Amino acid sequence: MWGTATIAISTREKLERARAASALLAQLSTTAKNELLLGIADALEAHELEILHANAEDIELANLSGAMADRLLLTPQRIDEMAKAVRDVVALPDPVNEVLEEWTRPNGLLIRKIRVPLGVVGIIYESRPNVTVDAATLALKTGNAVVLRGGKEAARSNERLAEIMSGVSGMPAGAIELLDCGTRETVQDLIRARGLVDVVIPRGGPALISHVMENALVPVIETGAGNCHIFVDESADFEMASRIVLNAKTQRPSVCNAAEKLLVHSGIAADFVPRIVRELTNAGVEVRGDAEVCSLAIDVKPATKEDWAEEYLRLCIAIHIVRDTDEAIAHINRYSTKHSESIVTAEESNARKFLGLVDSAAVYWNASTRFTDGGEFGFGVEMGVSTQKLHCRGPFALRELTSSKYQIIGIGQVRS
Amino acid sequence: MWGTATIAISTREKLERARAASALLAQLSTTAKNELLLGIADALEAHELEILHANAEDIELANLSGAMADRLLLTPQRIDEMAKAVRDVVALPDPVNEVLEEWTRPNGLLIRKIRVPLGVVGIIYESRPNVTVDAATLALKTGNAVVLRGGKEAARSNERLAEIMSGVSGMPAGAIELLDCGTRETVQDLIRARGLVDVVIPRGGPALISHVMENALVPVIETGAGNCHIFVDESADFEMASRIVLNAKTQRPSVCNAAEKLLVHSGIAADFVPRIVRELTNAGVEVRGDAEVCSLAIDVKPATKEDWAEEYLRLCIAIHIVRDTDEAIAHINRYSTKHSESIVTAEESNARKFLGLVDSAAVYWNASTRFTDGGEFGFGVEMGVSTQKLHCRGPFALRELTSSKYQIIGIGQVRS
Repeated sequence: MWGTATIAISTREKLERARAASALLAQLSTTAKNELLLGIADALEAHELEILHANAEDIELANLSGAMADRLLLTPQRIDEMAKAVRDVVALPDPVNEVLEEWTRPNGLLIRKIRVPLGVVGIIYESRPNVTVDAATLALKTGNAVVLRGGKEAARSNERLAEIMSGVSGMPAGAIELLDCGTRETVQDLIRARGLVDVVIPRGGPALISHVMENALVPVIETGAGNCHIFVDESADFEMASRIVLNAKTQRPSVCNAAEKLLVHSGIAADFVPRIVRELTNAGVEVRGDAEVCSLAIDVKPATKEDWAEEYLRLCIAIHIVRDTDEAIAHINRYSTKHSESIVTAEESNARKFLGLVDSAAVYWNASTRFTDGGEFGFGVEMGVSTQKLHCRGPFALRELTSSKYQIIGIGQVRS
Repeated sequence: MWGTATIAISTREKLERARAASALLAQLSTTAKNELLLGIADALEAHELEILHANAEDIELANLSGAMADRLLLTPQRIDEMAKAVRDVVALPDPVNEVLEEWTRPNGLLIRKIRVPLGVVGIIYESRPNVTVDAATLALKTGNAVVLRGGKEAARSNERLAEIMSGVSGMPAGAIELLDCGTRETVQDLIRARGLVDVVIPRGGPALISHVMENALVPVIETGAGNCHIFVDESADFEMASRIVLNAKTQRPSVCNAAEKLLVHSGIAADFVPRIVRELTNAGVEVRGDAEVCSLAIDVKPATKEDWAEEYLRLCIAIHIVRDTDEAIAHINRYSTKHSESIVTAEESNARKFLGLVDSAAVYWNASTRFTDGGEFGFGVEMGVSTQKLHCRGPFALRELTSSKYQIIGIGQVRS
């Protein structure tokens, strides 16, 4: 079952190397894997100047500005942080070989379910070069080979980082493969390599995610799109509601767990809407709203039908008035991307209903949606936030980079 | 995010009804779901004559013979068995709402991971009408809506069964939707309905599975292909090895956990191969083999390169001689479909190596591969056998028809 015949030879060779490496990596002890990780951390520090040099070339060629340039930029401090992040992964527990369940059947068969690596994990990502190290590190810790396909802007940085990691003493050939980012064909090859790749995880914007979901022949973990909602119920403490809305919208507006929509109970709209619009506007947020919201506050632009489904990823929010919790839940289940939603309420029954009926990966009562994050959940690291229901849902990290296997031990039993 | 625009209207309406039903089903108590299941069991018995009548029409139109006709046939006894199987599901534990994990973060946030239904589960299957009831029953028990797309031969039987189940008192409209089996478009629509369908499970032959894997835009659980191997090691007890090989090959050759390949250690080939070839031949099995096998026994046809990857699903087996456990493992990892493989050996170190390094869903030591089955594993039921690594691997049943969700409870926390 060696993939499809249409994969470019250079990519196929890399995938086959990764496949071969995955068999070796799956058998490494936790100690051996941690030694490789420590080797990566040391090597990143030892090659700091080379990394900075490669990154400077990327920066010059990319000719970006503002947030885009900042995402691409590496500094001595950022390289130190990358190395530190690798050492943090060393300290985390290794999920591989964990016995998940074990039982004996009436016929004497002993059945054991153990955790095993996924095998070959493909990651497709955009400009941030630290993902190269993050993804490789998490894959390695869980005994997987990783195939990386980064963004064109970071080509030289990623190449240098992958070379440095692959060059660590004892690293199996093929454990970390970097695909050519100069052509879209490598994305196609990676997501269609059935039999060679066990899962592809796209990390990036909506266009990338959609492309992967629509074209992949291998299993995918869908990540990241977040049209997140906050519902301020009639009984909400206004001060708490303001704090949560401002935090969820403005603390880091470009990320998937930032709030994009605000629903307000009609019973408090006349009081709460003018207040929150003023606070949002003061924080530099563009506010859009339905007709009722526009009638209650100045500086609000009318929202169009498209607004309710859009993920702005910038300082913009749309406000909609609802009559009760049921209407808030219906609106969210219709328009959200099933990432993170929060209710602010003093009424426990409404909170319970919201937590039960909102069909999203993470549902909050009286907290900011910004907490949907592997680090904030206490996982130590994060590979992404799954918005699908298969395999894992919500922030995921080491355990979700594993599969399982049944080992069955008998004394000659046959089926009758 | 309502699917794609290209779905036929009749199918879209069914999928949207299923989507709406899934929200209701997810909230039903275990008792309520069990009442619906008991209603199904009673209704199947009450409408036995109608079911038999519809089935007789299918049988007449299909004009099949032998095993194919038998797969399609319903009898009073088989309907009783279907009803009994439904009642068995009532007795199984309901996995929904199980608290999988719960912890409190240093900032006071309480994080709870609970088990929730997947939502809308699509099943594509072939001629056996009992799958209509099986699949609907397992979906219902786990709070999912089910969309069924059965085979054309069983059209009338499936329609009648779906109608009977949908007509049970209290069954939410849309809980069980049956798509038109007269056109291939309904398969395409089902597997491409992103946003409406949470997972598709194909149950059938290799052509069906491949088609679904290659064309689906929604997450899929790949099932069923089984090119299963048995490796008879040098230290194997011949009597045990024979019993296991004969059972795995002949007890039910048309199923995915039947053995298709036999690997024999070179040290015992001269003694064991003639014996097992004779036994297999006596049991009506066509035996193929590599050059060495052909030189050791009569009645063996030379195996071609294609044989090693083929899933025969009939009374045929191919035998290959290997020098040691490592070569057996390498051969299996190259050619198997990662379903079930068994080693017969008295040498524990070889067994451990085999169980560790063979990259398949179920790996056996001294037992028949025929045990890879939800019932045999003790799950009470089975939805299929996953041969992929994402979400679940090996036989899967109720728990694997669920996802999870994070509920986070705060007192106004925001992220700093």
